Amino acid sequence: MTFERVAIIGLGLLGGSIGLAVAQHLPGIATTGYDVDPAVRQRARERGLAGTICETASEAVAEADLVILCVPVGAMTEVAREIAGALRPDALVSDVGSSKRTVAKALSEALPNHAIIPAHPVAGTEHSGPDAGFASLFHHRWCILTPPADADPEQVNALIEFWKALGAMVDAMDAEHHDMVLAVTSHIPHLIAYTIVGTASDLEQVTRGEVIKYSAGGFRDFTRIAASDPTMWRDVFLQNRDAVLEMLDRFLTDLALMREAIRASDGETMFELFTRTRSIRRSIVAIGQDDARPDFGRKDHE
Amino acid sequence: MTFERVAIIGLGLLGGSIGLAVAQHLPGIATTGYDVDPAVRQRARERGLAGTICETASEAVAEADLVILCVPVGAMTEVAREIAGALRPDALVSDVGSSKRTVAKALSEALPNHAIIPAHPVAGTEHSGPDAGFASLFHHRWCILTPPADADPEQVNALIEFWKALGAMVDAMDAEHHDMVLAVTSHIPHLIAYTIVGTASDLEQVTRGEVIKYSAGGFRDFTRIAASDPTMWRDVFLQNRDAVLEMLDRFLTDLALMREAIRASDGETMFELFTRTRSIRRSIVAIGQDDARPDFGRKDHE
Repeated sequence: MTFERVAIIGLGLLGGSIGLAVAQHLPGIATTGYDVDPAVRQRARERGLAGTICETASEAVAEADLVILCVPVGAMTEVAREIAGALRPDALVSDVGSSKRTVAKALSEALPNHAIIPAHPVAGTEHSGPDAGFASLFHHRWCILTPPADADPEQVNALIEFWKALGAMVDAMDAEHHDMVLAVTSHIPHLIAYTIVGTASDLEQVTRGEVIKYSAGGFRDFTRIAASDPTMWRDVFLQNRDAVLEMLDRFLTDLALMREAIRASDGETMFELFTRTRSIRRSIVAIGQDDARPDFGRKDHE
Repeated sequence: MTFERVAIIGLGLLGGSIGLAVAQHLPGIATTGYDVDPAVRQRARERGLAGTICETASEAVAEADLVILCVPVGAMTEVAREIAGALRPDALVSDVGSSKRTVAKALSEALPNHAIIPAHPVAGTEHSGPDAGFASLFHHRWCILTPPADADPEQVNALIEFWKALGAMVDAMDAEHHDMVLAVTSHIPHLIAYTIVGTASDLEQVTRGEVIKYSAGGFRDFTRIAASDPTMWRDVFLQNRDAVLEMLDRFLTDLALMREAIRASDGETMFELFTRTRSIRRSIVAIGQDDARPDFGRKDHE
């Protein structure tokens, strides 16, 4: 089983990249696309983010055998309800949301008669919108599927092959575990980055201009993450609340220990942690999940 | 007034980069170098990190009119005492440490008869040691001088011109303000990064392998910072304790507010912060303090 017609609902960074990647890697598949924003649809036409850009979501999904919802996780229910009447009975519905437990529930409630296999490509940049997507976004990135227990193995395999064709590596796990893993590898890092950038903007002792000028000491890395799409991230924290709070409390406990080490001038505790953390970086670079060049290869050193 | 002979004590990332940058931009200046580690001295000779690599710190500084201490801030007193008897009476002593209040005090106590102008080039990568340095490290980066109130303006100017010749932009401020600014733009970001990488390594629910595989969701950015030199960073937190604790408590207050927003499903508070933080990123890119390309220009998207 393979897909012949793929509908992409939502044409931002992820949706646009899927459209461009299908055109490049799976040219035999016809794509339709829709976005709720007319200006995004216009730009999507200009960039060719899908073969056909439709004026309604129902029109986009009408003939598709795979429908991928690429909207903020808080908008899933609304979009699913909108397309429910227009979907082919045999269409597989998937998504790209960063939280999976609530999304799976929302989609299965809104589409009780359809096959649903949620997915999450762990890929992105700080940019968003219809100009942000590019065909190689998923190359050598993991895509995590969270198929329900009763999923049709043939459909699961077809979706795995689809993502592999776009350049991704594919894993499967249950939605609850996904949400815990992503809370620590993605959601907490974003929350921390947003917060420290906010803290730095609000100081009286240090001006915003100083924060910007001297950001190369480490801060600038956090501003990249804190430039990510606000709607998408608000929805992630609303939808993955429990796992985020659990991981946040772990982090806060560890940070309190480090605070106490600094207060007590306990250099040994600091040195132990600062030494231990180097090996994770090496492993990430070794398996090709980050750039080996210093500073991610930023070109300002040239 | 210009310098004719520059001694570099400590030949890691910063010291080595100064040596290479002087050779490139100020070839008329003779450089001597010393490192406490014989293996580093050997590698420094092979890479040509200074014109002459000496076997003692005293030998390295004996004829220098500018001596730059490039050792962890906790080692400043020891190194200053070691060179005190060998320094030329007219030698200017400077450094590259990331905290300035305690370093200024340590140096002026150890070298009561010498002119001291502390400095901090806000530049670096996650790599350290004698292989990490490169001549363009200071290009378009800020170097902050913290001259004491009684500093000789001619010497201050000479040091400013020296750093400008290496490609840096130069600012001056008092040491206390420097320590507050750097606490927020550099020290707290490092502390947070080290801590979250530590937290992620210690979880039971999520394996280390999963953290590494799915790190592209944001976590990998933190691992770069958390791969920085442990000795250097332990010393920074020991030496800049008060400013770090003050800024850390600001951050913790803000993080507690975000925790409460998540707990209460208060999407408005999140959205407001996530929107506000985007503009700082734009300003940093606009003034050339970060790479404008998505994801810092990481090449794994190619």
